[in-house]
Amino acid sequence: MSAYQRIVIAVDFSPACKQVLTRGIELATQNQAAVFLVHVVEFLPPIDFGYEPIIVPDWYSNEEEIVKQAEESLAQLANEHSINTDHTIVLTGIPKTEITQHARDKQADLIVIGSHGRHGIQRILGSTAYPVLHNAECDVLAVRIVD
Amino acid sequence: MSAYQRIVIAVDFSPACKQVLTRGIELATQNQAAVFLVHVVEFLPPIDFGYEPIIVPDWYSNEEEIVKQAEESLAQLANEHSINTDHTIVLTGIPKTEITQHARDKQADLIVIGSHGRHGIQRILGSTAYPVLHNAECDVLAVRIVD
Repeated sequence: MSAYQRIVIAVDFSPACKQVLTRGIELATQNQAAVFLVHVVEFLPPIDFGYEPIIVPDWYSNEEEIVKQAEESLAQLANEHSINTDHTIVLTGIPKTEITQHARDKQADLIVIGSHGRHGIQRILGSTAYPVLHNAECDVLAVRIVD
Repeated sequence: MSAYQRIVIAVDFSPACKQVLTRGIELATQNQAAVFLVHVVEFLPPIDFGYEPIIVPDWYSNEEEIVKQAEESLAQLANEHSINTDHTIVLTGIPKTEITQHARDKQADLIVIGSHGRHGIQRILGSTAYPVLHNAECDVLAVRIVD
């Protein structure tokens, strides 16, 4: 009996993301499940300090370039792990929204995502794992990242 | 290659908890992992309204009875799923603390727990899955409960 059929793995390109990917692929192999890789490029809106002119960070105008780089990195990651590049996608927006929407689109029954726990910088910045858990309509495996 | 060796499954005795248990056991079977069942009886401290006398709810004095009933229900659940009753435990306290501590004690590499998502009463009361995810030192699988 297969627990999962369609697994969405959310990756960034940190060294730790390989732990998440490895875990997701192990589960996919055990279940003969399809794997979908997703990376979200998070764009913040231009900063508007009240009546001051809108400040547009340099990188903001380079959105296309950033997405292109992310697509190349994701394709490389997919190739390294023998994942069909048709099953990879780079999205832009708010990670929790994009990841859970992508899971819905792909009719995924499991999202695999990294979680930093309560220590380190992620405690201050927050983790994507919590809002994904909150928003997802399927199971979520939070892989504890050991930095 | 086995992803997980020691899996702690947190259960209540709701009808929905069978979904969590089933998922956890499937993963354990795939990985030939040991399964540990845990149920937490959550006791709140007696209510003290400032200068009023402490109000002790009736059930509070029946802690032993409640724990005993929970142990019987857990043993029954374990028998139904061919789980060694030596691998079951009823704990009292705060669920997130007890579950994550038990996982540490058992050197678990995965906690399986139910998650209600953003709808229903759990949205108001909060879910145990989030704080467990926050506190755990191992991976956490949040099983989406379909009410």
